[in-house]
Amino acid sequence: MSLFGADTHTLDDLFVHGLKTIYYAERQIAETLPKMIDMATNPELRAGFEQHLRETENQRTRLLAVFKMLDREADETTCPAIDGIIKAANATAADIDDKSVLDAALAFGAQMVEHYEIAQYGTLIAWARELGRDDCASVLIETLAEEKATDEKLTKLAEARINRKAEMQTA
Amino acid sequence: MSLFGADTHTLDDLFVHGLKTIYYAERQIAETLPKMIDMATNPELRAGFEQHLRETENQRTRLLAVFKMLDREADETTCPAIDGIIKAANATAADIDDKSVLDAALAFGAQMVEHYEIAQYGTLIAWARELGRDDCASVLIETLAEEKATDEKLTKLAEARINRKAEMQTA
Repeated sequence: MSLFGADTHTLDDLFVHGLKTIYYAERQIAETLPKMIDMATNPELRAGFEQHLRETENQRTRLLAVFKMLDREADETTCPAIDGIIKAANATAADIDDKSVLDAALAFGAQMVEHYEIAQYGTLIAWARELGRDDCASVLIETLAEEKATDEKLTKLAEARINRKAEMQTA
Repeated sequence: MSLFGADTHTLDDLFVHGLKTIYYAERQIAETLPKMIDMATNPELRAGFEQHLRETENQRTRLLAVFKMLDREADETTCPAIDGIIKAANATAADIDDKSVLDAALAFGAQMVEHYEIAQYGTLIAWARELGRDDCASVLIETLAEEKATDEKLTKLAEARINRKAEMQTA
């Protein structure tokens, strides 16, 4: 803490702050996904959540590697954004009795999480490159690619629902 | 409120719930952007925020139109996700004295907001189509296109920073 209460002076500080918040967020996501897996009915959605859980664990390991590259202790900073997203996802899914509507709500929650992660990792990669830390960037790029693939998978699941409904209506 | 506390029974209910939360979120964003415009130094970033503010006002008007198509009163539901994102963006930007670092933090906050909106509108469009409400979907698609364009603009600004830094280092 500086004399003026300013902890963030440089882009380096901002980068480390960002790493700490996503390190916190990945743990929150890892703790939330098992509940989503339990609630999901659609087998593809469940499988997607299970895959995301495995990826989340790898992504935490990658963040550990980035902290190490920077010679920094791996540390977490609370992120009100992921806390709010998880709270919103829980609120939306609460008390839905219809299985298919609940699946739609869960998929929506997952997509909010994905987009949060895409924004976070996209920015961290840009900052790493701006700081000349292509070594860190290349580790984070692997995670970003996974997040984008998961988001596309969720979009395809939603498309499949639309097509099924359309076929049912024209049949 | 039903006997079992379940307000959401159908995809219709979920769609309306989503519309109400994004209607609330757009107002929060409209109230936050003027503060971001005041804080930003980079002229392109400021111009981007100003454009986003104008678009946000149009996007609220479009949501009004969708409520009308559904014969529903336009209404808001608090969304902990956007509240958390704005809180996180404020916390990241707080106490940064360096103008260029502050700009980077502001751009990051804006990109978190964009991705939140992309996830929201993407899902609402899919639900509208699943419900056979292509009229609502086509209005929401206009907004989604704007959000994606703003996100790309922010990414290009970050790229430009990286290239400038690289040129400075090799000069």
